[in-house]
Amino acid sequence: MGAQSPAALGVTPSEPIASPVPAEHPGVTDLFAVLAYGEISAFYRLTEEAALSPSLPGKVAVARMAAAELAHFERLEAALTARGAEVYAAMAPFTRALDDYHRSTDPSTWLESMVKFHVGDGIAADFYREIAGALSPDVAAVVRDVLADTGHSEFVIDEVRRAVAASRSERDRLTLWGRRLLGEAITQAQYVMAQRDELTELVLAATGDLNGIATLFDRMQTAHSERMAVLGL
Amino acid sequence: MGAQSPAALGVTPSEPIASPVPAEHPGVTDLFAVLAYGEISAFYRLTEEAALSPSLPGKVAVARMAAAELAHFERLEAALTARGAEVYAAMAPFTRALDDYHRSTDPSTWLESMVKFHVGDGIAADFYREIAGALSPDVAAVVRDVLADTGHSEFVIDEVRRAVAASRSERDRLTLWGRRLLGEAITQAQYVMAQRDELTELVLAATGDLNGIATLFDRMQTAHSERMAVLGL
Repeated sequence: MGAQSPAALGVTPSEPIASPVPAEHPGVTDLFAVLAYGEISAFYRLTEEAALSPSLPGKVAVARMAAAELAHFERLEAALTARGAEVYAAMAPFTRALDDYHRSTDPSTWLESMVKFHVGDGIAADFYREIAGALSPDVAAVVRDVLADTGHSEFVIDEVRRAVAASRSERDRLTLWGRRLLGEAITQAQYVMAQRDELTELVLAATGDLNGIATLFDRMQTAHSERMAVLGL
Repeated sequence: MGAQSPAALGVTPSEPIASPVPAEHPGVTDLFAVLAYGEISAFYRLTEEAALSPSLPGKVAVARMAAAELAHFERLEAALTARGAEVYAAMAPFTRALDDYHRSTDPSTWLESMVKFHVGDGIAADFYREIAGALSPDVAAVVRDVLADTGHSEFVIDEVRRAVAASRSERDRLTLWGRRLLGEAITQAQYVMAQRDELTELVLAATGDLNGIATLFDRMQTAHSERMAVLGL
């Protein structure tokens, strides 16, 4: 299917979006697919990193978060199937970037792992929510559903705040760690967009133009700082 | 956990129990607790062993099985709380035996891991279902709920049957593996019963006497052989 330019989609650069990106936009399949692979890889990262948890209640909390990610994957799987896409074929173009992100941000302590759950998910959620704002209501509903708070962030916030209040060096270390998470996430997002024209068009249509993308990354940076502050970082 | 009904496996309680073990029996808390820890450790074993899966669809199938185990844990957690037990304290006496079982049956291939999912769960399910037959209806309902087919056994059966039909040496190797799983499961079950008087009393009440326990283990052996046959082993 031929890709449409932002202009063909009725989106004028630097102006508010007049009408939402239509559900038929081929970038929507890419968007659902990258989200779907993100959920599955989050499931496995969470369970792997739970090995770092010092306690059984911590392991159970992480298992609950992982199960919530799987439920999100299943929502996206259904949405992709409804669009006529084969879910594994659709996810294939995104496995490398996401695997690279996780490999390059492999936590070495339980606290790093907790910060990654919270901050990494937050960064991704900010990005997808911004895009969702420009999508047709049915597409936006899927995106918002799978970004819904899984209700477990309180667990992470409490654990991290307690640890960094008790140790200045831990706080410094985790602050750097949070910065690295943001940097790697943006690197991989740019890599994906450079590879996938249709997804890039969707993001352009959603943000207005390249300037809009820059503004989006600025807003993500601000949201990231606020999220770090909540953790005491 | 387990896939097939006891009836389908030819397991039927030897004699009708005159009156059910009352819900207040202290062994019921032990029973729920050992089941609960079994579910959580199955969750983490499944996700760890999924690393052996050669494909993303295999990993997703395992993630679904793991999420079903977590849902079972949550049912038991609620049942323990309703009995006034603290779930982590209640599970503590059983972590060692279950961890030892998993450590002593650590799969080295994806196929060993699949056989362990299916056969190991089946052994446990046979045991718990036999006990459930002697419990009061509300207690038995919890046990049966958490042993309900998670609907994923077909996936395992297909993968294993295909592999062993294609390779005689694989079949021989997995046959020995299945025998080892049964042996280790019985060893750990005996260890737990030797440690926990109240649970042992519950099992005795459920099976009649020591003779009844021996008969139970015989029936489990038969059910195990039938389950292996379904896998082509």
